[in-house]
Amino acid sequence: MMEALPIELTSLLATRFGERFTTTQAVRDQHSGAGMHLPPLPPQAVAYAQTLEEIVSVAAACCTFKTPIIPYGAGTSLECHVGALRGGVCLDLSRMNQILRVSNDDQDCTVEAGVTRTQLNSYLRDTGLFFPVDPGADATLGGMAATRASGTTTVRYGGMRENVVALTVVTPEAQIIRTARRARKSAAGYDLTHLFVGAEGTLGIIADLTLRLHPMPEASSAAVVCFEDTASAVATVVETIQAGLPIARAEYLDAKAIDLVNRTFALSYTVADTLFLEFHGEPEEVERTIRSVETIAAARGGRAFQWAIEAEHRNALWRARHQAGFAAAASRPGCRPWSTDVCVPISHLAENILAAKVDLVEAPFPSVVLGHIGDGNFHAILLADPDNADEVAAAMRINQRIVARALASDGTCTGEHGVGVGKREALCEELGGAVGVMRAIKRALDPHDIMNPGKILLSA
Amino acid sequence: MMEALPIELTSLLATRFGERFTTTQAVRDQHSGAGMHLPPLPPQAVAYAQTLEEIVSVAAACCTFKTPIIPYGAGTSLECHVGALRGGVCLDLSRMNQILRVSNDDQDCTVEAGVTRTQLNSYLRDTGLFFPVDPGADATLGGMAATRASGTTTVRYGGMRENVVALTVVTPEAQIIRTARRARKSAAGYDLTHLFVGAEGTLGIIADLTLRLHPMPEASSAAVVCFEDTASAVATVVETIQAGLPIARAEYLDAKAIDLVNRTFALSYTVADTLFLEFHGEPEEVERTIRSVETIAAARGGRAFQWAIEAEHRNALWRARHQAGFAAAASRPGCRPWSTDVCVPISHLAENILAAKVDLVEAPFPSVVLGHIGDGNFHAILLADPDNADEVAAAMRINQRIVARALASDGTCTGEHGVGVGKREALCEELGGAVGVMRAIKRALDPHDIMNPGKILLSA
Repeated sequence: MMEALPIELTSLLATRFGERFTTTQAVRDQHSGAGMHLPPLPPQAVAYAQTLEEIVSVAAACCTFKTPIIPYGAGTSLECHVGALRGGVCLDLSRMNQILRVSNDDQDCTVEAGVTRTQLNSYLRDTGLFFPVDPGADATLGGMAATRASGTTTVRYGGMRENVVALTVVTPEAQIIRTARRARKSAAGYDLTHLFVGAEGTLGIIADLTLRLHPMPEASSAAVVCFEDTASAVATVVETIQAGLPIARAEYLDAKAIDLVNRTFALSYTVADTLFLEFHGEPEEVERTIRSVETIAAARGGRAFQWAIEAEHRNALWRARHQAGFAAAASRPGCRPWSTDVCVPISHLAENILAAKVDLVEAPFPSVVLGHIGDGNFHAILLADPDNADEVAAAMRINQRIVARALASDGTCTGEHGVGVGKREALCEELGGAVGVMRAIKRALDPHDIMNPGKILLSA
Repeated sequence: MMEALPIELTSLLATRFGERFTTTQAVRDQHSGAGMHLPPLPPQAVAYAQTLEEIVSVAAACCTFKTPIIPYGAGTSLECHVGALRGGVCLDLSRMNQILRVSNDDQDCTVEAGVTRTQLNSYLRDTGLFFPVDPGADATLGGMAATRASGTTTVRYGGMRENVVALTVVTPEAQIIRTARRARKSAAGYDLTHLFVGAEGTLGIIADLTLRLHPMPEASSAAVVCFEDTASAVATVVETIQAGLPIARAEYLDAKAIDLVNRTFALSYTVADTLFLEFHGEPEEVERTIRSVETIAAARGGRAFQWAIEAEHRNALWRARHQAGFAAAASRPGCRPWSTDVCVPISHLAENILAAKVDLVEAPFPSVVLGHIGDGNFHAILLADPDNADEVAAAMRINQRIVARALASDGTCTGEHGVGVGKREALCEELGGAVGVMRAIKRALDPHDIMNPGKILLSA
């Protein structure tokens, strides 16, 4: 049983936040980080911040009482990042959703941490600019920075790592810092921006973000191409990238994923290993790219080309891709989908996917494989029954084997989902002594281990 | 007077390194970081490492005796990064110049820290790949990572920040760590790669680097365009970027720089504010880009277009650009050129350059202004006489004013040269409380302050 929050802390926050501070079970359960293969872990209280000063006041109060703080955005993370391992106060930032500034000339903007990516892109609609990072879920930008999210467009535009210019962070000791100025590049001291991007809330609370924006491409076209086997699909993407063609998205779906997409969306894609591709550029360039990619794909046995030039068709295609995971989950009621997330050098991608598929054939549950193939990142979505110990054990074993093979290929245990609770051991296998350096940084910046404790590092 | 090195340390390193360990004055002077506005500060000894194990042995020995280590590449840094402020052992890595692996499929390579960028690009010549970061000097890649270097192609390909995938680092306590695996992206824990990139050797010694490579563009074309004023030149670049045109280089030279380039290289460019541009892509794309940029530039009064499609002409053009700084220095014998290095949001660039030029008109020494204009980064090269106290004081004052204005524009005191010794106060003005976080990291990772002490941070 978790110790109760100190009464002084509770009354202090209740006075400061009024109705925006609560200990009701329903709200705590909403903030418990349930999902995937890890159990829900509700915080002891939830505070909804609306201003930077309120974040500071929560940090100061929790620092005084050495009480954990768990920053919370949209709760869409997948490795139990917001589970309250040691109790504490969940700091919900979703109401900090102001877009503070946008500059067309500088192609950047500053937003509060609770702004979601779709909110930002709706706001930008008439500017000719957009924010490209697209992890699928409508996460908050603060959460996406905290977990170093990426997604379907990363092969072209980079992920959060490449698109965060500067952060305002509240430290565990309630100090406000800004990690960088708004210049496009800087050689001014340690790169704190990149330190906080991907720190999963363990070093401080992201209050606002300055982000790079990109010019909306003049033309886009998408394509669906299917292949005899995984290796041919991967080789097509490798060759497309090597040819310097402006590939904006390169998504792989295995035959089972296509089958589910077809059934869920009443579509009729050929059931085979398939690439969903997208190209951005000037109309003539996109036109030429289409021809080049057709040639490359055809040489690898690519067939059943379907081009979607119109926005409506492209959107339908990407909706289908984004919903493939959900379609998979829905195909087995009662299962708790568990997504693996390794990322490997692309020269090792086909062998890693194929080996995973061999494991999956023998699994006691269904599964699909999806991949951000241009980055070398793929997800096996394991549809295990959480109440069946054999299935859970098999899922765990398969995940471990997928991770072990990725590490043997000099890849990473997590391409974009983060470490959270679920990948802490794998992180040690992956980076060995470097984890000791991470631990030293954590201890230096958060000496009382109050910032999202227990995430990333097994011990602080 | 600096205390002598401990005799035990000297004899230990002499035994281990033989002739590759020296205390001779000439070699120490070669490693003193002389240049720019800061005095030379020779180390007490120099060790030439040839292997990772030798780096570890120097780190272990210096750790035992709490003796400073100054990692050294080509010595081309500009803010006294390799000056031995507190004496110690200079660890020269220039002989660690093996290219360890290149992967065409993964478009990456791993090189020892002492490999220079031109060495790498010569090696890659037949692969269809190249390493784009080009700071002008033929620096070592380890040094370029340590100072977070960038340069003329950063607008298109990014700088070291964007192109380092992973590092092998020897820590101040002589441990070997690898900051990341070779995957294109990863969400595995704190981003140590970016922490060591730009740490200027104050947190550890970079032993090898895994770098992103890029496909050599099918076609390149360069152009020289001159303008009535700075604002028109800047606006042309802003609009080109906004149009999403694939601009690979966008360099600004003021009329005085053009005049010196003309005289030094027997060229005949119109003496005016000028852009040197380069575009990469497929031939048709480059062709179309040329037409679009001509239209944009013409609307801003751009004239005297000179296109250089052939490699030979382009190389001559970029040689002229790269030598502009040296040409400036040579134009006033006895001067010690001092390059400012601010970088601002591009919407503030023209006003910052113009204000700098107003200051420079009143300066008691000649100067030129150059800029990596697509990034918002410009250099005023102050040709002050180091023996004239008035000139030195004026140069200092002008640099401070340029920095103050950049900070007022939410820019940075250093776009690409780094902090070293010269920008330590400016860093505090720029980032305030965040410098305290940097100091906490430094203390945590280098508790005895032996790694390049006194750089970046005024006190550890």
